[in-house]
Amino acid sequence: MTAQRAMQLFLALFVALALPFGAQAQQSTKQKVVFQVSDADPQKWNLALNNARNVQAELGKDNVQIEIVAYGPGLGMLKRESKVQARLADALDQSVGLIACENTMHNTKTTKDDMYSGIGYTKAGVTHLMKRQAEGWAYIRP
Amino acid sequence: MTAQRAMQLFLALFVALALPFGAQAQQSTKQKVVFQVSDADPQKWNLALNNARNVQAELGKDNVQIEIVAYGPGLGMLKRESKVQARLADALDQSVGLIACENTMHNTKTTKDDMYSGIGYTKAGVTHLMKRQAEGWAYIRP
Amino acid sequence: MTAQRAMQLFLALFVALALPFGAQAQQSTKQKVVFQVSDADPQKWNLALNNARNVQAELGKDNVQIEIVAYGPGLGMLKRESKVQARLADALDQSVGLIACENTMHNTKTTKDDMYSGIGYTKAGVTHLMKRQAEGWAYIRP
Repeated sequence: MTAQRAMQLFLALFVALALPFGAQAQQSTKQKVVFQVSDADPQKWNLALNNARNVQAELGKDNVQIEIVAYGPGLGMLKRESKVQARLADALDQSVGLIACENTMHNTKTTKDDMYSGIGYTKAGVTHLMKRQAEGWAYIRP
Repeated sequence: MTAQRAMQLFLALFVALALPFGAQAQQSTKQKVVFQVSDADPQKWNLALNNARNVQAELGKDNVQIEIVAYGPGLGMLKRESKVQARLADALDQSVGLIACENTMHNTKTTKDDMYSGIGYTKAGVTHLMKRQAEGWAYIRP
Repeated sequence: MTAQRAMQLFLALFVALALPFGAQAQQSTKQKVVFQVSDADPQKWNLALNNARNVQAELGKDNVQIEIVAYGPGLGMLKRESKVQARLADALDQSVGLIACENTMHNTKTTKDDMYSGIGYTKAGVTHLMKRQAEGWAYIRP
């Protein structure tokens, strides 16, 4: 093997090794945060919505990805007749993801017709929160 | 130094550098989540147990490692006379780790005889939660 | 290119690649945890202060960096007339960072004169909590 050949091999391996870190750095340019709502408490629902708004105000709406996940006793936040219903349209307009837990819906005999239209769904709120944390999202439980 | 010797050295260093990442990737095939229970609220205790069950149902019991850590006002969840006592045996059967905080026990003059048998213990619930997060576990506070 | 030159280049690249990991490892020798206080509940405030004290007791005060971030309904914890006021001086003495959210202060017409002296401030409590998590701090919500 010549020195040149050794160098070529080395560079190929270096690129293969270094690329994942470059890719990771690029992903993290947009900050991400998921809020958990699991209380049947409209004050907490308002707090989660305030938090989302403040994060967008400080970081810039286009620099941050936000989701609010409602499950268990918190499901009511995203129902059609929610006490914060007037604020849900605004959150969706501002690209805040609103996500309801289908397990909780199933257990409480709630259908999509009962839910605020335009929201998203996840099979299990908790596993969604686990997935987001594994992907590097910050977790906030207001 | 010959080109061959340079290449040998390089490969040795490459393996030394790359190994930790391979090991890390292998560890993360099993998902992990720790639930914090720090409220004296049986509804929260039930929610934590429901969450654990739902996570196992969705991900498959063998694909996920789960712990519930009770501390502060949440210690009552894991006492012998706990209001969710009937569900604790089932959680243990399903390999859900139930872990009580010895600091809280000490401060409230609670002994292991007062606790549900079969559970685990940690010196300080909070440092256990810190350790798990540092190890890459998801953190959920129901 | 000679084999020696190839080796020199390789070592330079190796050092450049390996340094960040060494630096990261060094940073993580000190454990870090941020506590979120967002409830208007003095019991939660005491729990956060107890948690901080227990973490220092177990890990050693010099081996851990601790912050308590108060925002939303939790801001009252760090006010001059706080119900846990007597414990705040002690926390500051023990190098526990006490940090109030300026957004919450603005929204509730609270000034720094209303706050306990010696505490720190952050523009938005939630983005501070996001930043700490991104930096690898554990997150605890008592």
